[in-house]
Amino acid sequence: MLNISIRGNAMPASPIRKLVPYAENAKKKGIKVYHLNIGQPDIETPPAILDAVRNADIKTLEYSHSAGNESYRKKLVEYYKKVGITVTADQILLTTGGSEAIQFGFFTCLNPGDEVIIPEPFYANYNGFACAAGVEVVPITSNIETGFALPPIAEFEKVITNKTKAIVICSPNNPTGYLYTRAEMEELKEICIKHNLYLFSDEAYREFCYDGEYVSAMHLEGLEQHVILMDTISKRYSACGARMGAFVTKNKAVYDTAMKFAQARLSPPGLAQIMGEAAVDLPDSYFDAPKSEYLRRRNLMVKRLNAIPGVFCPNPGGAFYAIARLPIDDSDKFCQWLLEDFSYNNQTVMLAPATGFYGTQGLGKNEVRLAYVLNLEALEAAMDCLEKALEIYPGKVAIEEMAATAIK
Amino acid sequence: MLNISIRGNAMPASPIRKLVPYAENAKKKGIKVYHLNIGQPDIETPPAILDAVRNADIKTLEYSHSAGNESYRKKLVEYYKKVGITVTADQILLTTGGSEAIQFGFFTCLNPGDEVIIPEPFYANYNGFACAAGVEVVPITSNIETGFALPPIAEFEKVITNKTKAIVICSPNNPTGYLYTRAEMEELKEICIKHNLYLFSDEAYREFCYDGEYVSAMHLEGLEQHVILMDTISKRYSACGARMGAFVTKNKAVYDTAMKFAQARLSPPGLAQIMGEAAVDLPDSYFDAPKSEYLRRRNLMVKRLNAIPGVFCPNPGGAFYAIARLPIDDSDKFCQWLLEDFSYNNQTVMLAPATGFYGTQGLGKNEVRLAYVLNLEALEAAMDCLEKALEIYPGKVAIEEMAATAIK
Repeated sequence: MLNISIRGNAMPASPIRKLVPYAENAKKKGIKVYHLNIGQPDIETPPAILDAVRNADIKTLEYSHSAGNESYRKKLVEYYKKVGITVTADQILLTTGGSEAIQFGFFTCLNPGDEVIIPEPFYANYNGFACAAGVEVVPITSNIETGFALPPIAEFEKVITNKTKAIVICSPNNPTGYLYTRAEMEELKEICIKHNLYLFSDEAYREFCYDGEYVSAMHLEGLEQHVILMDTISKRYSACGARMGAFVTKNKAVYDTAMKFAQARLSPPGLAQIMGEAAVDLPDSYFDAPKSEYLRRRNLMVKRLNAIPGVFCPNPGGAFYAIARLPIDDSDKFCQWLLEDFSYNNQTVMLAPATGFYGTQGLGKNEVRLAYVLNLEALEAAMDCLEKALEIYPGKVAIEEMAATAIK
Repeated sequence: MLNISIRGNAMPASPIRKLVPYAENAKKKGIKVYHLNIGQPDIETPPAILDAVRNADIKTLEYSHSAGNESYRKKLVEYYKKVGITVTADQILLTTGGSEAIQFGFFTCLNPGDEVIIPEPFYANYNGFACAAGVEVVPITSNIETGFALPPIAEFEKVITNKTKAIVICSPNNPTGYLYTRAEMEELKEICIKHNLYLFSDEAYREFCYDGEYVSAMHLEGLEQHVILMDTISKRYSACGARMGAFVTKNKAVYDTAMKFAQARLSPPGLAQIMGEAAVDLPDSYFDAPKSEYLRRRNLMVKRLNAIPGVFCPNPGGAFYAIARLPIDDSDKFCQWLLEDFSYNNQTVMLAPATGFYGTQGLGKNEVRLAYVLNLEALEAAMDCLEKALEIYPGKVAIEEMAATAIK
């Protein structure tokens, strides 16, 4: 027998994508499906950055430097300066999406058996990269009642062992939309210094902060050697398919080591680098339109959700996600039921069960993640579907029961 | 102290890129450097495949399917059919360059501590991916005297242990240019079946076979479940910077597991997929021009090399590389000296020391790899430089001494 590797077997399948066949079936039946399940915005990619590729004078599309084109890295220095981050071009390593930045971070800093603490619910693919690297994810639960604020730092202290090497954060957060406060970021800094931990900071959504102040891990004075910024143009410029990210750190040993992983894969995608470089030249006002659009969507969606009996959705400060608690028995069943057995005016909505975002087994069973990546009209229709669905879903749970479950 | 991971420390730096600073210095001094050190061809990327990107109607550059666009995978089925490989679209997983295909293969099939046998000299980055995966590379030496033919299968038998899980081959080969014969491929098949090994087959250079027949690992009947094809458009269409590859296997368990790694990184680069898909529509005659150009270059370079006293270069059957034995003490020193201390008519040549392609310490010290990726005129000038350099290099070794060393 040819065997699959242990890590290959352990590797989690994408929880977001497992409902896809049900959605495809629904569509085959002629049902319109509103996709609030993935972070793929409908916002146009800025035409200027696609034009930069169209107009590029390319004879031979050659390998770039393994760290990416110097011209782009120099431009990114300017970009980061605007968001209060002071770095040099040789502290930036361009990556194939934010995904590769996460991968380089884990492989560079962590040994098999090491532990990383991640406030849950968290971006499910951290599990995949941790599994590939042989690293254990130790979740710390944040709660919907507090809007998914940073759990008390005492909770971190409780789980720190001599195997703990890093904390992973994402702010504004996917999947909760929570925007960490400066005080929370300072708390994270203190614990990283106290216990000598790396802080991996996923800041894919920094341009989309609606309430409160954006604080980067790179703003934290004294934490310079600990911080690895994992970045991407995917959400910032609605260019998810380009696969252009960045691994940024002031820790030279970390950078030099990540560079060896980068050399093995030769170079990041060439045309995507042209897009990224052109994006830095977009006027600062570029973000005004998508940001205010997302804000309108958030306001609409959160309002609609909280108006449904038994539903609770905290108001997220950033990104384009929200997690809502629904009066249901099981979010996996419910999301499948929405696609398999439900329609309203020949329409339905696809949501992501929150179970996939928790590391702790059993959590998220009455929560779903909604990405407000569709326009207001579509969002209204999607909310109509959800409202109707919750009226007739067979696995509906009375609100008193939910409260009881929550207390347990 | 914040520590670098063990695998991060163990990760090899690129042996091909370590001489780059010396080349940069030479250029600063006004010396023209002929780059025969890397597999970056000067051949134009077919304008039609860049035009496909220019003309693509993209509003939002979205994530693709994690396996890549179905339309492209279906086209690749046609392409593979033309080269005698029968696969379906759901046996193809599109990757970020051939690099990611290697990575998916190692992570899917191999556990930390497992061993892979690779005939040496071999593509140096296999070491990097093996290191990332915690896998041991066991080299089997092929010899310049036989033109780097497959070592006797008895040599494989000698090193196979219960930890041996796979053999990695590359044909036509980088760095030797050797094209494996059908008989050799059949031998590999037998040993893979006998010892239940995966066969990872890197076929990046299949279009460039000059002497002899191209035999794919996927042509071997009865080995279907063992074979993982690692492919790329980088060399085929001179599009190295696009980063578009493919992981192809008929082993469903392997495919499904690799798919989980693919889901974690979301999708392969979008614009590169458009290039790859358009490339399948190039006329079959497209390859005539680059292939005959490479053939002319090979013929010139090999002839020039063998005309230099003390130099021996076997005639490679494919790809665009050759390894030559030079009358020198140390190829690393010599290649650095060419950049630091030598010039002829204000020109010099950059070569890759073969030491970086051997897994066995000490081998390759009197060998260099040359990539014939420059036009005939530049190649002539580069050969002039090499010829003059070997006349005056202080570490020159007499031919008799070399023979003595070779016997030792």
